[in-house]
Amino acid sequence: MQPAIDYAIVLAGGSGTRFWPKSRAARPKQFLAFGGGGTLLAATLERTAAVAPPERTFVITGQTHVALAAEQAPNVPPSQLIGEPAARDTAAAVGLAATLVAARDRSASMLVCPADHRIATTAQFATAANAAAALLAEEPRRIIVFGIAPTSPATGYGYVERGAALGAREGLTCFDVARFHEKPPLERAREYVAGGRCYWNAGIFAFRAATMLAEIARQMPELARGLAEIGADIGTPRFAATLARVFPTLPKMAIDHAVMEGAERRAVVVPAYAWDDVGSFLALGRASAADGGGNVVLGQLLAQDSRNNIVDAGDGLVALIGVEDLVVVRTEDVTLVCPKSRSEEVKQLLDQLKSRGGETGRFL
Amino acid sequence: MQPAIDYAIVLAGGSGTRFWPKSRAARPKQFLAFGGGGTLLAATLERTAAVAPPERTFVITGQTHVALAAEQAPNVPPSQLIGEPAARDTAAAVGLAATLVAARDRSASMLVCPADHRIATTAQFATAANAAAALLAEEPRRIIVFGIAPTSPATGYGYVERGAALGAREGLTCFDVARFHEKPPLERAREYVAGGRCYWNAGIFAFRAATMLAEIARQMPELARGLAEIGADIGTPRFAATLARVFPTLPKMAIDHAVMEGAERRAVVVPAYAWDDVGSFLALGRASAADGGGNVVLGQLLAQDSRNNIVDAGDGLVALIGVEDLVVVRTEDVTLVCPKSRSEEVKQLLDQLKSRGGETGRFL
Repeated sequence: MQPAIDYAIVLAGGSGTRFWPKSRAARPKQFLAFGGGGTLLAATLERTAAVAPPERTFVITGQTHVALAAEQAPNVPPSQLIGEPAARDTAAAVGLAATLVAARDRSASMLVCPADHRIATTAQFATAANAAAALLAEEPRRIIVFGIAPTSPATGYGYVERGAALGAREGLTCFDVARFHEKPPLERAREYVAGGRCYWNAGIFAFRAATMLAEIARQMPELARGLAEIGADIGTPRFAATLARVFPTLPKMAIDHAVMEGAERRAVVVPAYAWDDVGSFLALGRASAADGGGNVVLGQLLAQDSRNNIVDAGDGLVALIGVEDLVVVRTEDVTLVCPKSRSEEVKQLLDQLKSRGGETGRFL
Repeated sequence: MQPAIDYAIVLAGGSGTRFWPKSRAARPKQFLAFGGGGTLLAATLERTAAVAPPERTFVITGQTHVALAAEQAPNVPPSQLIGEPAARDTAAAVGLAATLVAARDRSASMLVCPADHRIATTAQFATAANAAAALLAEEPRRIIVFGIAPTSPATGYGYVERGAALGAREGLTCFDVARFHEKPPLERAREYVAGGRCYWNAGIFAFRAATMLAEIARQMPELARGLAEIGADIGTPRFAATLARVFPTLPKMAIDHAVMEGAERRAVVVPAYAWDDVGSFLALGRASAADGGGNVVLGQLLAQDSRNNIVDAGDGLVALIGVEDLVVVRTEDVTLVCPKSRSEEVKQLLDQLKSRGGETGRFL
């Protein structure tokens, strides 16, 4: 029988601040639809369903978002919708997932993926997962990362530099990992792309539960201790209380820095699919067809002499006269207007809003 | 005793399309507040209360807006809130007002003013009304228009060119009217302003009821016949039905063209007050103080590197990054974005919206 991934883990803990005001503290990006086809989380679960069944799927999200996750994941057993009592970044989330899976089967393989990416197609995603499963069947100690062939010198992603070729699995090339690179400045990103040996780190990982826990124990003993404490109470009535007490004390670090950079045996699988991390409103422009004026529109736009704008009108209407290259996002209570080139500055705007405090907090 | 105006008539029939989406078919401009201090209609009634008491005040508005008018005019007897069964422009509205007043007292003086202007101050407004009353006491056959000394070569107003000086009343200069000029092209407007003999026609008129009806009879016999038919049923149970049947058949014309241009005895009084017809969103900029970045704001603005914008956030929040000289207006269901220089094009946008039909009609 062809090797397959045993468990799918969906990381749905992001706060989605770059999508404010569409995303809000109470409803981050992964719980929003960007165009047709349901929320990003629902779309992610549709993909992972092609890899592992719901009874072997976990969703890790913020504690306050478990109910939202349950709406999007009706087939996943409620006990497998895990609410993080605090945001502790991906090392803690992945470590918790490995702990949960290990409690059932330490040798199980697992695929961890963010809930807020756009991937076409599900079949190609499953193929990449199968390639990872095949590699894990041969070499169970690898930690595998999906590397996307870069289409631009993006500065918003980390890069994975390939090492020796490992041959193809499921028709996809696999490599050893030479090294991980942090989000680079533009000039460096250009070198990475020109060199042809670097891939975008898409944040999708495949490994066996025992391998991840061993690497965490070796590289992050403090994290390992906390996870062991949580793991000891899995399946007992104390689990929720222990999670609430211990999880917030775990070191806050990205899995890339915490584990991947120092991991002993790594690999990169290069999927064939088109991928978008839906990192800013510009992603709407990449995903949706434009009207005759080059405007990309979610919802209803009334435009006069206006070109190349990205518009999300929510349930209402956006009316534009004589403007170009703007992002205009309206929700029930907030409207954002900014040039496309500056949509990443939403984060700073949010910081400003946070610092105001008072009743403006309702707009966060 | 000093002569006074007997009746105040507030014309509140406008549709306020230039303020869409703030103004809507169901709530035109005169029923909206622009900054502090209540709606434009309420502010107008506060001014007219200094001229004539509520029991001698009529409000003429669209039939569908009578309830809104009643909210804003709690002191005016409900029978004096007149709903026009159709929009027939100002000649029909002023003629109806003269007919209503004449039914009580043909020789009564009346002041007719639009509900959607901004005038500072009430005392100066009352002084101008008293000047008109004084002139009418001396020469009951005059029809008087308030002429605003122009501060710019505006192309959006008609102009009144003065004739012979008639001396001062209440300290305000009064003139015969040489002629009325329609809204001029810019070059012509510049000549009017440079010439020093032209005033903006502010659409405020004072006259005796009998004089207006006589001029209508002489210049607009068709209008006079319809008004006579309506007038015959004033104070009877048939009034509403007659108004509903006859009013929509009245000629549709502005009072300026229909009566003023051809009236036999006219005068212009030049008030001392600051006046704004609140004709577009730019009026917000004239009326409100700007923040440190030159942004004029109604409601809540979150701005980063954004200057000289006019923002109406409604009950919500507008967030701007890196934009200048825009008008941004958000309501519960619509957001408008356009450069200040093009805010007058809202009318064309509305035409586009109307022509779409279907469920977008809810945004009208």
